Amino acid sequence: MLKVEHIGIAVKSLSASIPLFEKLLNTPCYKEEIVESEQVKTAFFRSGDTKVELLEATGPDSAIARFLEKQKEGMHHIAFEVENIYEEMERLKKEGFLLLQESPKKGADNKLICFLHPKSTNGVLIEVCQEIK
Amino acid sequence: MLKVEHIGIAVKSLSASIPLFEKLLNTPCYKEEIVESEQVKTAFFRSGDTKVELLEATGPDSAIARFLEKQKEGMHHIAFEVENIYEEMERLKKEGFLLLQESPKKGADNKLICFLHPKSTNGVLIEVCQEIK
Repeated sequence: MLKVEHIGIAVKSLSASIPLFEKLLNTPCYKEEIVESEQVKTAFFRSGDTKVELLEATGPDSAIARFLEKQKEGMHHIAFEVENIYEEMERLKKEGFLLLQESPKKGADNKLICFLHPKSTNGVLIEVCQEIK
Repeated sequence: MLKVEHIGIAVKSLSASIPLFEKLLNTPCYKEEIVESEQVKTAFFRSGDTKVELLEATGPDSAIARFLEKQKEGMHHIAFEVENIYEEMERLKKEGFLLLQESPKKGADNKLICFLHPKSTNGVLIEVCQEIK
């Protein structure tokens, strides 16, 4: 794991939360992106070498919609950047972590991503991600 | 806000969670520290330019004990490093954020810290922190 690539925060409304996080972090949102396959709209903020990603559901089957049905807005996942997602998924599987994907899927921000089930990671939803080159 | 200084994760037991996070992050825990005033034991892992901090309650009045009464183990807070915590607290107060301390308190890892109430920050418990020089 190279670094914390971003921290994902589930929000009801990007249009309400973007100005809030701009004030909080004292930095502008530099990118918004829709990920159709995940039914999410995302918004990114830089913080040092990492990012804060806000996530709004665009459909009822979105993981973010399901999250917000069960709990309030708040921290959703931590994403760690890895050099080689295939090798890292293999390593994590051998260590006993439960992978939510058999093979990496395309995420926001030009990344291949894979999630680990929170029940194997102390209740924390972990994403590993690799930049698509 | 200079960067994400660390991500705080509430755990029931450091002795169970330290080996888990060592496997997950593929890096050793480099420091454990008790913060008496907060009734917590902490354990730190490096991840790029930021850190993961595990927090275990050492007493029933600990914020971590109260957190674990209400919800499961998992992400607890995001800490942002700031150059000058007094100026940043002033700025955040003016922006309408609700500060949980009137003045900074001493936290783990040689830091002055202040928390913002999650109700003013989209459900995310935010810490601002400054290295004590």
